[in-house]
Amino acid sequence: MDLLSLKLIAARLEGLEETIINKLVDRAQFKVNSAVYEPGRSGFTGEPEKSLFELRLLYQEEMDARFGRFSVPEERPFTTGLPGPRRMVNLPGSGLYCRNFDLVNVGAEIRSSYVGLVPAICPPGDDSQYGSSVEHDVIALQAISRRIHYGALYVAESKYREDPDGYKRLLADGDMKGVLEKLTRKSVEEKILERVREKVEHIQARINTEVRTCIDSGAVLRYYRDSIIPLTKKGEVLYLQNRME
Amino acid sequence: MDLLSLKLIAARLEGLEETIINKLVDRAQFKVNSAVYEPGRSGFTGEPEKSLFELRLLYQEEMDARFGRFSVPEERPFTTGLPGPRRMVNLPGSGLYCRNFDLVNVGAEIRSSYVGLVPAICPPGDDSQYGSSVEHDVIALQAISRRIHYGALYVAESKYREDPDGYKRLLADGDMKGVLEKLTRKSVEEKILERVREKVEHIQARINTEVRTCIDSGAVLRYYRDSIIPLTKKGEVLYLQNRME
Repeated sequence: MDLLSLKLIAARLEGLEETIINKLVDRAQFKVNSAVYEPGRSGFTGEPEKSLFELRLLYQEEMDARFGRFSVPEERPFTTGLPGPRRMVNLPGSGLYCRNFDLVNVGAEIRSSYVGLVPAICPPGDDSQYGSSVEHDVIALQAISRRIHYGALYVAESKYREDPDGYKRLLADGDMKGVLEKLTRKSVEEKILERVREKVEHIQARINTEVRTCIDSGAVLRYYRDSIIPLTKKGEVLYLQNRME
Repeated sequence: MDLLSLKLIAARLEGLEETIINKLVDRAQFKVNSAVYEPGRSGFTGEPEKSLFELRLLYQEEMDARFGRFSVPEERPFTTGLPGPRRMVNLPGSGLYCRNFDLVNVGAEIRSSYVGLVPAICPPGDDSQYGSSVEHDVIALQAISRRIHYGALYVAESKYREDPDGYKRLLADGDMKGVLEKLTRKSVEEKILERVREKVEHIQARINTEVRTCIDSGAVLRYYRDSIIPLTKKGEVLYLQNRME
């Protein structure tokens, strides 16, 4: 199996897309609950400054670190200084060439873009389901991050291999705008956006809206267009800048 | 809002049903990976006996306990001896009458039934994605447990209020078979099963099966019929046995 075939990578990205949509729909069963994103309102003893969302993300990543999650190239943490894994993770070679995968981490931007997405998909207001809200936030956020970093690493390596000399020239000139342009496939991006909109609409078409909140397909499309795709490309450029010969 | 109206409870159960289906579909993107359920094969340092699945569930519940998850009546843990919450959870009154919600806990049976479900929904074999598999297992397991315990507690209380004297007589006689029969609504169960099958089929109808594994609607229907519904009813009986006047 060639991990770097663009067709295979595109298929994996499409699969992760459905996971993201499922997780956003599950989050939207709770109201926005903006208090969970406000620093100092977590209600946690001994944590006067962080928000409940920040704390949940921190605890989740500490647990995941022990399980070896961040040994996987596309799993980049939001938190720094995490503990090491308590288990050996045996994964097949990635085919990637990178000094340090932490140099290809757009987590901070993913996180702030996600917090901006919440009011666009969840019903307004407060239902006091704070624990469930941040639980689902973190699950959704991790799925989005996996998709972005997977794309950043594998798409970049795959495209690089199509024309190493072309990329090397641009990189040597420090022409990052040129690298970004060379990586961009406008028609592929448009296809993804259309597919995302259709999927969000289709999986919700027969939902009983008396018992279940639907999310706006336009909001997910815009999130893909304005955050997921640009951050993936930003990660691609970072990967190529840090690619090891 | 009357938390104990049967209509409202049924709506909430139907909403949780979609969450369960979403989470099972996400789990099925990884192979069965039976090694993760085998004791002593977690690869964790200092954990020679537990399976990776057991360890993930334990760590997840320890984290959730700190966030106050188990302060909610329908959130019953699989683990005993968990730490206390580090935050105050402010939830509206439940309207339930119970000495100790831990007496209404069918977690052990939920867990073993879930492990039996995995091979019925996931592709056979091993893809070495152990971390992702147990991560999704625990998320799915918690959604199933929430649905079962929510049903057990709220459906039982609501039905009890329709005929307190009838239930009291059966309980005083120790006639648990009679209680179970009185709680049973065969036509409602059949409606749920049909709805579950349709939903699983519909949400997957336009999935690109080249990039995404579909789960068998019959397997989910059977899991509802043979595990979720009977365990909910078992929990209803437990609740009534432990109902406090």
